[in-house]
Amino acid sequence: MCQVCFGVDVGGTTVKLGLVTQDGELLEKQEFVSAHDVGEMFDNIAAHMKEVMGHFSDYQCVGAGVGVPGPVVEERLVHGCANLGWGDVDVAGELGRRTGLPVKVANDANLAAMGEAWRGGGMGYRSMVLVTLGTGVGGGIILDGKCLRGAHRAGGEIGHIPVNPRETRPCNCGGHGCLEQYASATGCARLAREALAASTEPSALRALPDPDARAVWDAANAGDALALKIADEYCTYLARGLAVVTSTVDPEAIVLGGGVSRAGKLLLDMTRERYRPLAFPACKNTPIVLATLSNDAGIYGAMATLLAEK
Amino acid sequence: MCQVCFGVDVGGTTVKLGLVTQDGELLEKQEFVSAHDVGEMFDNIAAHMKEVMGHFSDYQCVGAGVGVPGPVVEERLVHGCANLGWGDVDVAGELGRRTGLPVKVANDANLAAMGEAWRGGGMGYRSMVLVTLGTGVGGGIILDGKCLRGAHRAGGEIGHIPVNPRETRPCNCGGHGCLEQYASATGCARLAREALAASTEPSALRALPDPDARAVWDAANAGDALALKIADEYCTYLARGLAVVTSTVDPEAIVLGGGVSRAGKLLLDMTRERYRPLAFPACKNTPIVLATLSNDAGIYGAMATLLAEK
Repeated sequence: MCQVCFGVDVGGTTVKLGLVTQDGELLEKQEFVSAHDVGEMFDNIAAHMKEVMGHFSDYQCVGAGVGVPGPVVEERLVHGCANLGWGDVDVAGELGRRTGLPVKVANDANLAAMGEAWRGGGMGYRSMVLVTLGTGVGGGIILDGKCLRGAHRAGGEIGHIPVNPRETRPCNCGGHGCLEQYASATGCARLAREALAASTEPSALRALPDPDARAVWDAANAGDALALKIADEYCTYLARGLAVVTSTVDPEAIVLGGGVSRAGKLLLDMTRERYRPLAFPACKNTPIVLATLSNDAGIYGAMATLLAEK
Repeated sequence: MCQVCFGVDVGGTTVKLGLVTQDGELLEKQEFVSAHDVGEMFDNIAAHMKEVMGHFSDYQCVGAGVGVPGPVVEERLVHGCANLGWGDVDVAGELGRRTGLPVKVANDANLAAMGEAWRGGGMGYRSMVLVTLGTGVGGGIILDGKCLRGAHRAGGEIGHIPVNPRETRPCNCGGHGCLEQYASATGCARLAREALAASTEPSALRALPDPDARAVWDAANAGDALALKIADEYCTYLARGLAVVTSTVDPEAIVLGGGVSRAGKLLLDMTRERYRPLAFPACKNTPIVLATLSNDAGIYGAMATLLAEK
């Protein structure tokens, strides 16, 4: 009987839920709006799981992995998720009670890294670092198939590597000059605002009231000279962060995910060009590749986490 | 019968050799001048090991760990040690043939980190990062008792974390603005030269033709105002490197070793003060402590490595 598991990615806006085989096949996926109430949230998740399992009665479900956007203790509890308005919640208990399944809980960025390492952009590498370029900059470090969580659950907090000692504006974390201030989608939009204000150079971006990261990269991909300068500045900061990661952890590969990574080949090419001169000699050729699982990374990561525990 | 092992730290100038019990007691230590010829080097090491074992015939020797200042492959071979004038040398084969013992070879910085984690400043922590502030800046990352070697043997190359994007002078590695350019003993001496040239502020350092790191820290410890400014600049760079390490690897503790760490409490206090504002919130209180094994770290590390393999 083929073994399957549920991957559940709990976000502030939606919950993504999928059933994955141990060979990495995603059998079915559902997405639904997040409930505000904790009890209602887990009632909904359990109901969706039951519905999906009804379609696959020939399979044996061995458990569920749940990703949450907050600090996780002992693979069970989450200590406060600002995005969800949660205090301390026993995620494994809540969902286990409702489904009768063993449940493992992990930080969502770590789960995404496990997924990309298992069946995504990091497939085939024994060690890799996922850097997610989204609203913020997150990360996950996978060494020998396991996630480096860190002593204070700050392992892989790539977004808060200081990359600009001269920055005076504070980061959300309270620091100054963190990678997230430049390499997040928000940071990219700010670099664009500053570049537009600093010159009168013509650019397609001037037609937009407040260009976001996507607009910047679309314009750069279309050859807009000012957008290319903004993209280059973005990649310079990102490359500083990556050089730090490879000099410290020295993974087999770096995987770029998150919304900004949809910029694709141009992002990769510019980042690699900026990365090489900054990198330690042994790490100059460390592959920098794109994530491939997009929003499904956490679903795959849940199965990868359950398999890694065996 | 009590089990012991040899730790051999092969340097460009001297070889340090010690016999350690599995409980971490250093029974005897010898130090002798490094031979230029590879064969002569291993003849000497084997002869010293035989002599030491003669004093401890009641003990059972289970192996030898050897630290070398270069990249090590498969715990046997070293690929080129510039400091020793070596090309490719089968260290495990050379010493194993002469002694009949199993031999494991490791990079000297990694071995020192294993030693400090087992019986030195990092004792009691499950994960720690050793940063050696010597002629260069080296490092070793220990996670769950094992050394993170990295995919290209660059794990823990803390010295080559970029910390100053504005630096124009090249580092030995070819990069610009690496931590080693400031936080090594050489880097500290350069910061002193620059500070002395940039002002006419009186200082005890002006009496010296070319103040080294030790002179800077001695003067700072004596309250010399200019030396304290140099020390503060030194610690600012060091703190940037440490903030990067904790945001990435998030160890339980940071251990400072190498010659400059003899500056002691003042170095710790200033580094901690500069580190806190740069660190990710969860890591602001990560202990920063001093290494305690000095030149014996590699000897202890050899036994720790053999124990970890069991």
